[in-house]
Amino acid sequence: METAEGGRQSRPPAGAFLLYSSLLINALFFAHYFLISPTGLDDDDGGSCGLSWALKAAREAEAVAAADCSGHGQVFLDGVPGDDGRPGCECNTCFSGANCSLRSPNCTADANSGNPMFLEPYWTRHAAASAVVVSGWHRLSYRTTDGLFQSVELENHIRRLHGAVGNAVVDDKRLVFGAGSTQLINALVHALSSPPDDGSAPASVVATVPYYPPYKEQTGMFDGRKYRWDGTTDTWANATTHHNSTTKNKTIIEFVTSPNNPDAVLHRPVLASSAAIVDHAYYWPHFTHIPAPADEDVMLFTMTKLSGHAGSRLGYKTWALIRDEKVAKRAYEYVQSNTMGASRDTQLRMLGVVKVMLANLHGDEDIFAFGHDVMRSRWRRLSAVVSRSRRVSLQEIPPQFCNYFKRIREPSPAYAWVKCEREEDEDCYEALLKANIITRSGVGYGASSRYTRVSLLKSDDDFDVLMERVTDLVNAEQYEAPDDSSSM
Amino acid sequence: METAEGGRQSRPPAGAFLLYSSLLINALFFAHYFLISPTGLDDDDGGSCGLSWALKAAREAEAVAAADCSGHGQVFLDGVPGDDGRPGCECNTCFSGANCSLRSPNCTADANSGNPMFLEPYWTRHAAASAVVVSGWHRLSYRTTDGLFQSVELENHIRRLHGAVGNAVVDDKRLVFGAGSTQLINALVHALSSPPDDGSAPASVVATVPYYPPYKEQTGMFDGRKYRWDGTTDTWANATTHHNSTTKNKTIIEFVTSPNNPDAVLHRPVLASSAAIVDHAYYWPHFTHIPAPADEDVMLFTMTKLSGHAGSRLGYKTWALIRDEKVAKRAYEYVQSNTMGASRDTQLRMLGVVKVMLANLHGDEDIFAFGHDVMRSRWRRLSAVVSRSRRVSLQEIPPQFCNYFKRIREPSPAYAWVKCEREEDEDCYEALLKANIITRSGVGYGASSRYTRVSLLKSDDDFDVLMERVTDLVNAEQYEAPDDSSSM
Repeated sequence: METAEGGRQSRPPAGAFLLYSSLLINALFFAHYFLISPTGLDDDDGGSCGLSWALKAAREAEAVAAADCSGHGQVFLDGVPGDDGRPGCECNTCFSGANCSLRSPNCTADANSGNPMFLEPYWTRHAAASAVVVSGWHRLSYRTTDGLFQSVELENHIRRLHGAVGNAVVDDKRLVFGAGSTQLINALVHALSSPPDDGSAPASVVATVPYYPPYKEQTGMFDGRKYRWDGTTDTWANATTHHNSTTKNKTIIEFVTSPNNPDAVLHRPVLASSAAIVDHAYYWPHFTHIPAPADEDVMLFTMTKLSGHAGSRLGYKTWALIRDEKVAKRAYEYVQSNTMGASRDTQLRMLGVVKVMLANLHGDEDIFAFGHDVMRSRWRRLSAVVSRSRRVSLQEIPPQFCNYFKRIREPSPAYAWVKCEREEDEDCYEALLKANIITRSGVGYGASSRYTRVSLLKSDDDFDVLMERVTDLVNAEQYEAPDDSSSM
Repeated sequence: METAEGGRQSRPPAGAFLLYSSLLINALFFAHYFLISPTGLDDDDGGSCGLSWALKAAREAEAVAAADCSGHGQVFLDGVPGDDGRPGCECNTCFSGANCSLRSPNCTADANSGNPMFLEPYWTRHAAASAVVVSGWHRLSYRTTDGLFQSVELENHIRRLHGAVGNAVVDDKRLVFGAGSTQLINALVHALSSPPDDGSAPASVVATVPYYPPYKEQTGMFDGRKYRWDGTTDTWANATTHHNSTTKNKTIIEFVTSPNNPDAVLHRPVLASSAAIVDHAYYWPHFTHIPAPADEDVMLFTMTKLSGHAGSRLGYKTWALIRDEKVAKRAYEYVQSNTMGASRDTQLRMLGVVKVMLANLHGDEDIFAFGHDVMRSRWRRLSAVVSRSRRVSLQEIPPQFCNYFKRIREPSPAYAWVKCEREEDEDCYEALLKANIITRSGVGYGASSRYTRVSLLKSDDDFDVLMERVTDLVNAEQYEAPDDSSSM
């Protein structure tokens, strides 16, 4: 540089100063761009932006997510790689092709499972806030903060969420995390039964029809000596009214689901004498109005239906709020001896998810407003078509005042509880299956086979296919004789 | 540009051209820096380096990880925040203070649990390769690729790892993932027992002394009608030799741990007639020589002792290799009905971890070479001190040829199986507890109380404290009468 500028003594220095300054700034920019940032040279747009070890993982995740699946599928980091070494699109049901752009005609609608995919678009919109980086050394240990198996910070945030939504009284309750609701159901039945060696009769586990089938199935599967499935509440309600001697010293554990799965009705325990386990999986403003904070002795909640993270299945995704300290301790010990707590990876991710929900309450991006919009619109569309039918009908749900939204809200249930009205459609599940709609028969819920459950929780694509098949079914009514349903 | 160059007829253009060019380059740099990169203005060192939604999470993770905990603790993203709103250091046992710089004098050594923290430094060194970004929408669904509950890609990588290490024959086996070893143990016992309603006698579940206590505890806890804990193999070995009629049509399920927990001996099933479940949790080159690939009908492996990720507890961290298709199917169905698969978050993280291990096999950063170095050095140090003692002794482990390292390797067991030699030290656990060393009594392993298990798997800090207490114990021998041990 000095040599090149050597011959310029006689000229006024202003231009030269400008030139030198400009060149110096050039040099600084170059230095910053290509020397200080070690990855600058091989990046498309340079710079490590101050990141070191997390940069590679962040780039990989964004590169994978950028793939085009036509809005009918997703690419996942741990998908099976194709010939190009990258994972390909995993298409939604009824879609196929490398970019999920091909739609199968007359595809069967699968409305069986309660897979809460309706919330996926919410998390895609909140990508930055809900992403989390898990380092290779993150919580290797069996134990977490203060030697506990439960995350203190996650518990604090869940308590805050209940308070802000106003759907549960938490201050006088212990919070116990379980690894999935199956485990927690068993932990609670165990905690509410008498100790194994006290010689008392087994506790009776009961529920009101229509009930969520796993309560019966799980109680049977674990086949414990201190409790057994013992039918439905109507039998016991009569017995207890008449002060029947057989019920006097008996422990009755009543399962209550509120709002109820399948029919969305808000329930309270019906047996005054029983210990109740109240499942509030759907007691969030997506799915129901919130008349008041729930305050039962033993309450169950789950992340699956709240945030939609069903795939994080095991791990801190299900929790119980328990008033009695001894019952809480027995439940905690059961969970701990069974699994030594749950996945720290999932716990970390769920903490991020709860933080996003909390930060957006009552704002433009409120997850409950989003969820309610989607589910209300689905219920409206389904109701409009079914109202034209004399063959199938839906449960009635009135609009109700919601303490969270501070207004009357339209219904937005998770499931349609469909009744087949024609005499020959005794098996409603079969009747809908013939119309290429997969549902879940009412029989498993302790109800008549005239009923079947239709899930409204799945993806937009799933719901669109469901609407097509239901519309076909209803449209066909005008062209057929009432006894000709088998030809559908 | 053309306008700017318009007035340059009379002067030679070199200097001005240089100036203009330089200014232009500056302008381009500025534009790129502050306009194209949207976050440029508020970053310390500018640039989003092409990242969008993953940037914030990456920065948060790095900021948290950068905290100084004096090498005696860690900060975790989901730690409880302090007054400054950031999570603080979580200190290793025997360390305290905001930066974990204070060491408690005469701290008790906790050598009870098999917490595999010795591998934490490996993952800190491989931060970039092992980090993973979990997006908010990552695998919300209950189901994964192809509708399965198991990750195809993780299974493929685990098979590759077994092949490359040469510790198991995988080609003729099915792979079933479990949510923790407890669940998988029960799934396998269930799968190997006769069906519930066939009227046959319950299967007998047995093991050889000293055995891993959970095999007995779990079999008892689940209290199934089709199997029961039935003591140790030596009883049954005699019975089967004499063709005792009671054993003829009986299903005997033998648990074998190889290398054995607690004493590191390689074992095979001893009852020729039994169905064996062989637990190979420690059959990796950190802990033992590999004489040949294992090839039993039902084998168990776990990520906990392989990579050290104990905290990912639930999720795809435990797997069984099963030869018989029917047994594999029963085990898979049991796991599925129990939990509907396992956490996708953990599965994604574990895939990254297996990839790092695979990429470094036989190189400078081989995890097995690293793990073997650490564990061998610990065994050497402990052996050297204990060799001066007449009060306590260790199991003997000879150096052996290892097919993975292709050379004779020194022993590096996960646990010391300590025997108290003095007549009055009948309860070895208590004798060590008086010397401020927490161990796990031999009684739980079906062995004599003269034995106790000392974990060597924990962090360097834990091992240093253990060495101090053991050295104190051994040094004290020369100053005391043999019957004065209670004063320690």
